[in-house]
Amino acid sequence: MTSSSASEEFPRSAQNRVRRVPDRGSYDQRSVYQVLDAALVAHVAFIQEGSPFVIPMLFARQDNRLLFHGSTKSRLMLALASGQPLCIGVTLLDGLVLAKSLFHHSMNYRSATVFGSGVAIREEAERMSALRVISDKIMLGRWEYARPPTSQEMKATLVAAVEIETASTKVRLGGPKDDAEDESLPIWSGTVPLSPFAGPAVSDANSTNLPVPDHVQQWRASVNRTT
Amino acid sequence: MTSSSASEEFPRSAQNRVRRVPDRGSYDQRSVYQVLDAALVAHVAFIQEGSPFVIPMLFARQDNRLLFHGSTKSRLMLALASGQPLCIGVTLLDGLVLAKSLFHHSMNYRSATVFGSGVAIREEAERMSALRVISDKIMLGRWEYARPPTSQEMKATLVAAVEIETASTKVRLGGPKDDAEDESLPIWSGTVPLSPFAGPAVSDANSTNLPVPDHVQQWRASVNRTT
Repeated sequence: MTSSSASEEFPRSAQNRVRRVPDRGSYDQRSVYQVLDAALVAHVAFIQEGSPFVIPMLFARQDNRLLFHGSTKSRLMLALASGQPLCIGVTLLDGLVLAKSLFHHSMNYRSATVFGSGVAIREEAERMSALRVISDKIMLGRWEYARPPTSQEMKATLVAAVEIETASTKVRLGGPKDDAEDESLPIWSGTVPLSPFAGPAVSDANSTNLPVPDHVQQWRASVNRTT
Repeated sequence: MTSSSASEEFPRSAQNRVRRVPDRGSYDQRSVYQVLDAALVAHVAFIQEGSPFVIPMLFARQDNRLLFHGSTKSRLMLALASGQPLCIGVTLLDGLVLAKSLFHHSMNYRSATVFGSGVAIREEAERMSALRVISDKIMLGRWEYARPPTSQEMKATLVAAVEIETASTKVRLGGPKDDAEDESLPIWSGTVPLSPFAGPAVSDANSTNLPVPDHVQQWRASVNRTT
């Protein structure tokens, strides 16, 4: 496990170097971890029989690795656990950037790109602990509350860990950057912020007589804090 | 160009066949197009020097192709225009699905996976028309309103079209599917819907004396209609 002191950077290579608009790029571990921790879904790219594939997955970061879980029958989970090279992309779209010129239109976003390869976690206590990290990341409080996995369910579950070999983030913030000669044009420019919104919880037919638990309401509040 | 009658399906192959939970999968063109049209960002996967890469991109669908634009200097844009095999993933996260058992926790989503390869659009009128399709998809009304591209700006822009060779969607809707023996457990189960929220437009310093145009307010309303 790699420590995550503020000054550490991931190694730069042809793989992870931010080429377009490099001043939006960063190799700082803390920046990469922040973007990863803010996202629920990652897009995992891998190669199978010479073709690229990309599949969305729930995930969590633990120290310098990403944890995934799925069915032991999943093609993606087998790729994730096989040691083959992976590229994992995480993107948070924070807004549209509307410039006076069409050319300078853009979007505000935080993205992270991770390179690494995965292994299956085999040891039973470590598997259970990794599942808890994933559960806690998606919704804190759910793990202690819901019915725990049976040994049968654990047998059907593959848990994979991808050590982050290298990574980068790319972030765009703020308003449009118009050309000086366009600044006085009578065209409205600015940004429209975008954020996820969590609506009211909908009880299942088997739970209509039960109150919505605090951890669900707290999760909604944490998602909606930014809106 | 392929027509989009309701009955047409993309060919099924080892590439696009939905293996896990196949009843969530569809190869219907209209279903694929609906998911593509609902998303602003696509994750484009390609292979470079034997390694997988995945990069987020704004895009639009026109008939049976996906349109992308970017800098002529972008590594991704060159890959998009090179004819090499691409896999393009689009994911809309619609909610968390909270079951009584941890094992049956899930998410509601609409995802599309597209396979194809791209070419650069060279003809000037077609390039301009493709840029307009992209602009109209992201925010209808902006193209007519903002300052049009100059020939210099057009020279710096690469526009690529990816014909959809095959594709599939995978969609999960509705509440948790708990095991029969768990249904009476005193554990709250249900869903928490997620949707994008567009906040109030923020005027740029160069536009504080101008009203926020109707097309921007209408865009906000269309994003927020689902929330």
